[in-house]
Amino acid sequence: MEKIKTVSEKPIAVRMHEKDNVLVIASDSGAKTGTILYDGTELVDDVPYGHKVTTTDIAEGAPIIRYGETIGFASEFLPCGSWVNESRTTLPDAISLTEGFPEHKIRKVDSEPLEGYTFEGYRNADGSVGTRNILGISMSVHCVSGIADFVVKRIKNELLPKYPNVDDVVALNHHYGCGVAINAPMATVPIKTLQNIAKNPNFGGEVMVLSLGCEKLRPERLIPEKQSGQPEDIILTMQDPAYEGFQAMVDEMLERAERHLAKLNQRKRETVPVSELVVGMQCGGSDALSGITANPALGFASDLLVRAGATVMFSEVSEVRDGAALLASRAETPEVANALIEQLTWYDEYLKAGGVDRSANTTPGNKQGGLNNIVEKALGSIVKSGSMPIADVVAPGDRVVKRGLNFAATPASDFICGTLQLAAGMNLHIFTTGRGTPYGLAMAPVIKVATNSGLARRWFDLIDLDAGTIVSEGESIESVGWKLFHLMIDVASGKEKVAAEKLGLTNDLVLFNPAPVT
Amino acid sequence: MEKIKTVSEKPIAVRMHEKDNVLVIASDSGAKTGTILYDGTELVDDVPYGHKVTTTDIAEGAPIIRYGETIGFASEFLPCGSWVNESRTTLPDAISLTEGFPEHKIRKVDSEPLEGYTFEGYRNADGSVGTRNILGISMSVHCVSGIADFVVKRIKNELLPKYPNVDDVVALNHHYGCGVAINAPMATVPIKTLQNIAKNPNFGGEVMVLSLGCEKLRPERLIPEKQSGQPEDIILTMQDPAYEGFQAMVDEMLERAERHLAKLNQRKRETVPVSELVVGMQCGGSDALSGITANPALGFASDLLVRAGATVMFSEVSEVRDGAALLASRAETPEVANALIEQLTWYDEYLKAGGVDRSANTTPGNKQGGLNNIVEKALGSIVKSGSMPIADVVAPGDRVVKRGLNFAATPASDFICGTLQLAAGMNLHIFTTGRGTPYGLAMAPVIKVATNSGLARRWFDLIDLDAGTIVSEGESIESVGWKLFHLMIDVASGKEKVAAEKLGLTNDLVLFNPAPVT
Repeated sequence: MEKIKTVSEKPIAVRMHEKDNVLVIASDSGAKTGTILYDGTELVDDVPYGHKVTTTDIAEGAPIIRYGETIGFASEFLPCGSWVNESRTTLPDAISLTEGFPEHKIRKVDSEPLEGYTFEGYRNADGSVGTRNILGISMSVHCVSGIADFVVKRIKNELLPKYPNVDDVVALNHHYGCGVAINAPMATVPIKTLQNIAKNPNFGGEVMVLSLGCEKLRPERLIPEKQSGQPEDIILTMQDPAYEGFQAMVDEMLERAERHLAKLNQRKRETVPVSELVVGMQCGGSDALSGITANPALGFASDLLVRAGATVMFSEVSEVRDGAALLASRAETPEVANALIEQLTWYDEYLKAGGVDRSANTTPGNKQGGLNNIVEKALGSIVKSGSMPIADVVAPGDRVVKRGLNFAATPASDFICGTLQLAAGMNLHIFTTGRGTPYGLAMAPVIKVATNSGLARRWFDLIDLDAGTIVSEGESIESVGWKLFHLMIDVASGKEKVAAEKLGLTNDLVLFNPAPVT
Repeated sequence: MEKIKTVSEKPIAVRMHEKDNVLVIASDSGAKTGTILYDGTELVDDVPYGHKVTTTDIAEGAPIIRYGETIGFASEFLPCGSWVNESRTTLPDAISLTEGFPEHKIRKVDSEPLEGYTFEGYRNADGSVGTRNILGISMSVHCVSGIADFVVKRIKNELLPKYPNVDDVVALNHHYGCGVAINAPMATVPIKTLQNIAKNPNFGGEVMVLSLGCEKLRPERLIPEKQSGQPEDIILTMQDPAYEGFQAMVDEMLERAERHLAKLNQRKRETVPVSELVVGMQCGGSDALSGITANPALGFASDLLVRAGATVMFSEVSEVRDGAALLASRAETPEVANALIEQLTWYDEYLKAGGVDRSANTTPGNKQGGLNNIVEKALGSIVKSGSMPIADVVAPGDRVVKRGLNFAATPASDFICGTLQLAAGMNLHIFTTGRGTPYGLAMAPVIKVATNSGLARRWFDLIDLDAGTIVSEGESIESVGWKLFHLMIDVASGKEKVAAEKLGLTNDLVLFNPAPVT
């Protein structure tokens, strides 16, 4: 990506690549007809903030180029200085995943090891490292979630204050476990997800499992193999005839929770290399600046993490679909490229079975924000993966196994992506947003990065980092990338709390269940 | 259904129909080899509680008959007195929904009007009647649910005490709204569900809607047409540039909530006929006694309600699938029968697309409880619909429009069924359970009925009515049915609180979304 050009006084328009025939308007109030941009383009339309303007005449049917790539075709003649809105562009056909796909080539990138960076984390028996010390209360079925909520409230009030080294108690509420086709081919996805969430490093191997008793998802399946203690110490079954009423269940849960809290309380933070970070990246409420500011800065930070030996995941299948060729060429081996194509192909079929295609991804907010279609959105989204080779592809529900940059093949839904990244082992979450979201998770800290300074200013208590300074103050991508890298270390170490943690804002776990309910 | 026969001293075995060639063991500890039942059958196996025993020799391949219907075939020769377990039976083929389906016939049933029964309810402007007075806070997307939870907590602490006529404030949390294929053919189901939940009579037309701003599901779509106030008074959009940070959003929400609370506080209970009840029925954690005790008693109460002019829904497509012919013959008109078949056919295809069929319904708990397969489970489940004609079929997400007995075509998943019944307009929920569940809803009271006295005794603080007395004490179905009918009136009137309300146990809204996520 070419370095951003700005006009001398005020950076009101930015170009991402020398081949581009559009600029993006970056001044808060947009730009009026007659405005002359730094490259001499004179606007013939009013162009809103984040939207594109042609910098040359574009013939009907000719390509519109951004990020050096074709993001669509002009559906009418667009004279230089025109507003490129959705109605003036047509979507390119989806890249075929089976025919004429470019041959896999390993790219050479600067991946000089980055050494000497550490954070303060909780080292677990299985070698993983937590960034928080949380008692997780999992459940085999949604039936017991009311009881879980009840007990969590009591634990927080009565027990947690006695165990100062434990950060939180969290019910791993979900809607699965019964009333579902548990043996359907795709039921493996939600089940693996729940199994692997229980292994998340932030729970220190001390997850408790609440069970009803008659549910389809047997509670034994949710216990991590390496967890200490026997199943009878971990699973509480409400229908166990031993419990005479609700109060007896609650008493037993509190008693067992206290044993787990006592063990968790012995965990102490210790200095560990940055390579122990497992960072999940995603974006939501994207706008046209996502691909110019926050995502490139995150891409730079992602490269730093990979060079330091950490594990980094990018995701969101329907947002990378149109950059498939680009990504496949970055796969470390042909096997990884094939795994990538396999995941994208499965998703194509999944969408088709539901009567839709990849174009179902973009939101009204994306479009208002200047992203005309999924191709443009995809190119801006992929930028956050930086420039490193893709070491592995993680199927939905699976745990990440290789260090370096991973493609975790999740839906783009913020909640489902976050949930699957938690299952993959994420101990730190980075979320870039242009339109703004209060998104948070109880299980891992979420650093929210604004793509524009207007949002960062307005949502001063919800946003953790302003990457909009890349446009508003001409700050370099590298500088913001380093800021983010250091913020990650501070948050992972517990020295900084993220906005969502301070306010106690959390979203639910949302499982990806491509199988039927019954 | 034939009246239950019991042995003189101890009711250890029950038969449901004179044609049956099995009895169900109803003594808590099961029955041992050598036990002689009231009809002279001598047990040749130990038979667990709730399981079936043959009362005649059954040849390999011959039908096993319960409720007067074939629930399966003997997979081996079963001498008289044998335990009929899952491995000894084979599942009958599914009834075809297209060929050889019996012609529709209107049944004559005793439906003498039942007059003079009333309850104390909240009459709404649209004519509906609430059984509770709740401020509902809906949302167009899951992104804002953390904020909704935050605000609900503050409203409960700071505002609710000032409005004594308002029972509760509830966030209508859900996982829909973005990251979904909003224009997929089946996306209409979750969208209609959310639209109709906002119209539930227990919210008194005062639902507030939280919106993020950039989501796919536009918040305007969630406002009931008849709701008082302009959209700008109802919808709060977090991304509205007017809000300078989280605290400003919270302040505005509290202010608006107070206006709605003031209006709701003016609602007063008044005496209304029982015909204003909209009762949703379902069962979960079923056992072999479900079809002998709780469901027949509920069926009797359902008949009383219908005779009194009320609206009653039974549901759970995959649990009635095997009783399709039975149900179609009860449809009030051929159009209703066709609508029923249409819903069952759609569900067959939905399951098939996911690689499963109706047999995916039964749970390990069902099987341990003596229900060998979905046919047996279905016959026991349908009993709760009583004997009245089926006045209408409600598609998933739709609102009920006809009084009388309705088939609301929902999945059998407890949470999804309850959510769809709320959307249909349910103001009172009856839930029968044999294995036990702490199930509750914040939006409408849930009366939990135990199928067996053992559960009712053990879960004394979680169960609202013991229908197990039909077996344990030889109480008549009619007697328990009337008890339940009176309990419904007391709960609907707010004179009695159900167990889940007292303990504050609630389950989530769980939307049925047969469309893809993106």
